[in-house]
Amino acid sequence: MRIAVDAMGGDFAPDEIIAGALEVLPQLEKDDTVLLVGPQETLETKLAGISYDRERLSIVDAPDVIGMDEKPIDSLRKKPRSSIGILAKLAKLDKADAVISAGNTGACVAAFQMRMRNLPGVNRPGIAVVFPSLTGPVTICDVGANIACKPINLYQYGLMASIYSQHFLGVQNPKVGLMSIGEEEAKGNEIVKKTRDLLRADPRLNFIGNIEGRDIFRGVCDVVVCEGFVGNVILKLTEGAVDGLFRAIEQELMQEKPELALMFKPIIMRVYRKHDYNEYGGAPLLGIDGTALICHGASKARTIRNAVLAAKNCHTQKINDKIMECLSEDRVRTMDGEKD
Amino acid sequence: MRIAVDAMGGDFAPDEIIAGALEVLPQLEKDDTVLLVGPQETLETKLAGISYDRERLSIVDAPDVIGMDEKPIDSLRKKPRSSIGILAKLAKLDKADAVISAGNTGACVAAFQMRMRNLPGVNRPGIAVVFPSLTGPVTICDVGANIACKPINLYQYGLMASIYSQHFLGVQNPKVGLMSIGEEEAKGNEIVKKTRDLLRADPRLNFIGNIEGRDIFRGVCDVVVCEGFVGNVILKLTEGAVDGLFRAIEQELMQEKPELALMFKPIIMRVYRKHDYNEYGGAPLLGIDGTALICHGASKARTIRNAVLAAKNCHTQKINDKIMECLSEDRVRTMDGEKD
Repeated sequence: MRIAVDAMGGDFAPDEIIAGALEVLPQLEKDDTVLLVGPQETLETKLAGISYDRERLSIVDAPDVIGMDEKPIDSLRKKPRSSIGILAKLAKLDKADAVISAGNTGACVAAFQMRMRNLPGVNRPGIAVVFPSLTGPVTICDVGANIACKPINLYQYGLMASIYSQHFLGVQNPKVGLMSIGEEEAKGNEIVKKTRDLLRADPRLNFIGNIEGRDIFRGVCDVVVCEGFVGNVILKLTEGAVDGLFRAIEQELMQEKPELALMFKPIIMRVYRKHDYNEYGGAPLLGIDGTALICHGASKARTIRNAVLAAKNCHTQKINDKIMECLSEDRVRTMDGEKD
Repeated sequence: MRIAVDAMGGDFAPDEIIAGALEVLPQLEKDDTVLLVGPQETLETKLAGISYDRERLSIVDAPDVIGMDEKPIDSLRKKPRSSIGILAKLAKLDKADAVISAGNTGACVAAFQMRMRNLPGVNRPGIAVVFPSLTGPVTICDVGANIACKPINLYQYGLMASIYSQHFLGVQNPKVGLMSIGEEEAKGNEIVKKTRDLLRADPRLNFIGNIEGRDIFRGVCDVVVCEGFVGNVILKLTEGAVDGLFRAIEQELMQEKPELALMFKPIIMRVYRKHDYNEYGGAPLLGIDGTALICHGASKARTIRNAVLAAKNCHTQKINDKIMECLSEDRVRTMDGEKD
């Protein structure tokens, strides 16, 4: 398997990305290769003097870099030789079986969608993020690929994320919840109400109905379906809330019982690790014809290592074949007026 | 001032509501009165044998109760003598200066809007919730009154919540952020983009631009403007995340260092109290012609006591006069095509 990694993506690129790629090599199979995509000279300089298997880790030149704050479509047009652009091209030309980037999410989604196309039957791909929770991993889809969701998109997110939860995370018969503002049927906006009908009508799904924000951490369901805008707020809010709370506890400890702070630190670190997105490596863009993982902007070597292993797992588990099987059924194709 | 309290609203009604009303009486001024709204007989039985100032705490009969899960409009129609319905009626007939309920939020919003009407110039009222954060209180509007927001509504939420933050919470020149999925201008859906233009064009606002979910707990701004659907998810998600994290820490402590658990408990309690919605009592429905506070469904006596004090403060600070002054300016009235 050939896995292409954006060496220039994220806040700690290229050093942490390169470190992650080097770390993961020995954990892959003998015929797996990693392609580091970025400015040739920069990467060669960074790799100089390091001993690694040159047949399994190679550089693909991409002289341009898209910044985290650049406009996705504009930047891809202006910088056709950016690492994200080249990543998508490698997938399109069948020179890579999986692509991974911790760079500009919007640019990744746009580039992957343009070059790699959707799987047959998929209207819009969605990003699925795994939240660790006390009761197990919760998959949330979409968290920002599509901010103008239609009910058919949300319905397909439910199907795709359910397949991902089952085959990637090993959750049996995953419970699917629809993010709304109350558990009652009457609550929610028009899109939620229509999506609810679609999800409920599909016997292949273990749909449990509407859920509320607080249910995510209560083990109520294994898959959360939501619009990209809402999902993105959920993702970043949770990160901010966890950080804020840990800081509040630290401040309180230092003020009240500084002698406890040291004893307590390992506990916090353990909780932190269990709720750490780095463990899951990256978030797959589900519905795309290929394996594409988008990583957090603050990805470290460990995140990249785990993302490469996740890409390998998605590929091995044939997640895409399962999505195609599911979405090629007549049920979806004949839903009038709901096509994107 | 006459403050009407829904004795039947919330998970712990009527006991905790009655207890809150009794607790707050001595903290009010001599000519302030509290009206407990609920089934006369039930409330009389509960109050029997308790000594309190009968001239300042009286019962208003409302034989029906709207459940937390009932459909708002339907239930108000079917139960015109529900506590929420009577509450709204008291305000309309000028028999109460403020109304407070911890009951069905949808029913409260519908009843208050129908009976009390909007302040002149206000298109849609919004619920403003105060989040405690390490860097000070953050006011979020709307958290669920309006789930079909237009840019003009969001813009007005920014103005109203800014006034509330300044005059109720004492924040000087509050910084206003617009909830989106990236700080960059290009990001966000169409409603966010249009709202951004409206907020930015108003020199009375200290508008700082788009914010992301993680910024809420970072002291980036004092006021967060968002759609009711998104705001409701934010509200409940934060509650769930905080609860989930405390439970995770507890579990870790019990497993790893049970001897630390007891020492650590007071620290957690202090952090919890500082992040406790009960402190702020209730969330005002901003933009309504009157003072209406909606409390958390899990409100205890302390929440109700604080809500009554908050209602008094809103009234004294003449928040509504300030909103009217602000919204009656020509600027708003002449914005074509943006009327709700």
